[in-house]
Amino acid sequence: MQVHPWQPSGIVTLLTDFGHADTYVGVMKGVLFGRAKGLQQVVDLTHNVPPQDVAAAGFHLEQAWPWFPEGTVHVAVVDPGVGSSRRILCASHAGQAFLAPDNGLLTPIIQRGAELRDLDLERFALDNRSATFHGRDVFCPAAAELVGGLDPLQAGARVQNGLCLENQRPADLDGGGWRGQVELVDHFGNLVTNLPSSLLGGDPLSFSVELDGHRLPIRKTYAEVASGELVALIDSFGRVEVARRDGNASRSLGLEAGAELLLRKQR
Amino acid sequence: MQVHPWQPSGIVTLLTDFGHADTYVGVMKGVLFGRAKGLQQVVDLTHNVPPQDVAAAGFHLEQAWPWFPEGTVHVAVVDPGVGSSRRILCASHAGQAFLAPDNGLLTPIIQRGAELRDLDLERFALDNRSATFHGRDVFCPAAAELVGGLDPLQAGARVQNGLCLENQRPADLDGGGWRGQVELVDHFGNLVTNLPSSLLGGDPLSFSVELDGHRLPIRKTYAEVASGELVALIDSFGRVEVARRDGNASRSLGLEAGAELLLRKQR
Amino acid sequence: MQVHPWQPSGIVTLLTDFGHADTYVGVMKGVLFGRAKGLQQVVDLTHNVPPQDVAAAGFHLEQAWPWFPEGTVHVAVVDPGVGSSRRILCASHAGQAFLAPDNGLLTPIIQRGAELRDLDLERFALDNRSATFHGRDVFCPAAAELVGGLDPLQAGARVQNGLCLENQRPADLDGGGWRGQVELVDHFGNLVTNLPSSLLGGDPLSFSVELDGHRLPIRKTYAEVASGELVALIDSFGRVEVARRDGNASRSLGLEAGAELLLRKQR
Repeated sequence: MQVHPWQPSGIVTLLTDFGHADTYVGVMKGVLFGRAKGLQQVVDLTHNVPPQDVAAAGFHLEQAWPWFPEGTVHVAVVDPGVGSSRRILCASHAGQAFLAPDNGLLTPIIQRGAELRDLDLERFALDNRSATFHGRDVFCPAAAELVGGLDPLQAGARVQNGLCLENQRPADLDGGGWRGQVELVDHFGNLVTNLPSSLLGGDPLSFSVELDGHRLPIRKTYAEVASGELVALIDSFGRVEVARRDGNASRSLGLEAGAELLLRKQR
Repeated sequence: MQVHPWQPSGIVTLLTDFGHADTYVGVMKGVLFGRAKGLQQVVDLTHNVPPQDVAAAGFHLEQAWPWFPEGTVHVAVVDPGVGSSRRILCASHAGQAFLAPDNGLLTPIIQRGAELRDLDLERFALDNRSATFHGRDVFCPAAAELVGGLDPLQAGARVQNGLCLENQRPADLDGGGWRGQVELVDHFGNLVTNLPSSLLGGDPLSFSVELDGHRLPIRKTYAEVASGELVALIDSFGRVEVARRDGNASRSLGLEAGAELLLRKQR
Repeated sequence: MQVHPWQPSGIVTLLTDFGHADTYVGVMKGVLFGRAKGLQQVVDLTHNVPPQDVAAAGFHLEQAWPWFPEGTVHVAVVDPGVGSSRRILCASHAGQAFLAPDNGLLTPIIQRGAELRDLDLERFALDNRSATFHGRDVFCPAAAELVGGLDPLQAGARVQNGLCLENQRPADLDGGGWRGQVELVDHFGNLVTNLPSSLLGGDPLSFSVELDGHRLPIRKTYAEVASGELVALIDSFGRVEVARRDGNASRSLGLEAGAELLLRKQR
């Protein structure tokens, strides 16, 4: 097993459902910059996770963390159980640290075999912590300690069984392809599916997607179809994606997350 | 009186009604990073204050500033009178500095007894300043000087009477409780009221809220009621708040800022 | 010709149509902070450019870059042709560097006489670059090299003919004024036109604007008209602008970008 001694990069990322209308995110940064020795940067991953959508937060975190240097502390707060007895997890994987409620948000990180700790609230929380905003009162004070050098393995008692959400895995159609679904509609209206590129082996261009009555061969780039046409390709998440060139596939097709599609070897 | 000699933290916060569609905020940061010696970080509090809503800006600033370290410079620009003869105030309180138009935005800071100065425009403004964007042409150049070490008490002539907005204080119902109102609807649709936790003394759970035909006992956390139910509690602002667990109280009740509610000792 | 030897400021700006719902922007920052030696700050100009609107991106970039210090690297990614054979330009002007697709986005920079280079993809791109997200896989790795000291003139082969969009220039009405159009509706609903202040010579207050049946003399500030009234003035972009004081001119007049107006010497 590879050992990653904890060497903070000075970078903290934030991922929440707090939006941009209030000062919740700004206040978290105030706590971080006031307490974290050696803090260089706080990077916003997104604060527009749909309220209380733990699964979407996990998807975003999983897509983003590999692009950060070792020693980064990722703080993810989508926390409908705030103030209840739900645990806060401190996970450690590939030299990076992750703080999140034990509500399934960390499913992809846990499934990678992360080491988990039950964050010791009494040790890290601010005095007089609120029952509604642990991002400010618990997560950021703990993140500040990690940035300052505390090894995430020392953040609390060992946890064996972090809560995991059930994955929506593609269904294998007995050699006839796979049935998948749309997992995320992005800002452009692109339909990001749960079909990973690994299903397509070494010859992705020999596959096609069937969605909403359309049959779309896998292409390499958006630019291979005319403006306004639908296109299927492998996107930057390494997933099969359906887009409308220079348009919005989700809106024009009326499809949202959960919509089903088929992936088949092209005849 | 406690003396706070000015020791810049290297942190500037920004609070505006400029939104995120244009480059107004980015340009302010360009001016700051181009001019401020020792500037470490610019933190966005929010840029989504409703256009020209000076009172909302004051609420957000008051909630956020205590979470920042001494020596922070807070720049708040909601400024419908830009280009007129309205003053710009430089306020100094608890070791932090505040720049804002003298239009009531600083009401909560002034009511805390801040020292006020009339910012010397001729000294700080960029050459050829515009009549429409003092955030760029005056506020940020002045903030850069404060970050660089200028004591906010030296930023202009002493001001005794900064403009204050009339507060919407809760009405005391002669021992029968208080009548308050919703002061802010946050990103989650939670109804943040003007009823401070201090009204509830040492036993907050003995009170209840009456709002829109609902009677809601004060709880400790959102998680004490079932998903979809209304709940009243003391929130992270230290205010009485009404929320819908895993939902949006404002939208489902059709209530906005200004809606009235009663707080009563529970019988 | 003035020589600007390349001296990185440690600042990178980002301008995209990626929005704030996904982690695209956060991931770009992860790549930057993981690779760029000497990187101090990443400043967001805006990520709300309308999807694929190359001309709007160019407008925003042109308004923002002069406010940044020499040595800044501006990364602008509105890139409908991503993955095709379109070039990526590295432009150098006034001691600043600009990375953008060769799709017209850099029109204003090119028209200022910037030195252009055809960014050498094979040299800068990450291994296994995607065909859909060059912001992450090409632009940011290249920006990291520029921040680290690489002279933008050394980023690839010299380009003579970067793609330029046709400008919508005001039409001279033979001494009877100019016909212009709305170029941008900003966050406040202000109508920013393509009429530069230079057209008004030394006496701007002797002109008026005719728009949608209204005749509006040029004023100095918003505050010169009553609340709710329309006002024309020279804005912080140095353009003729029509606004509604304490209101939204675009929404109340039903006018968008492209709407025509006349500028006339007042009789």
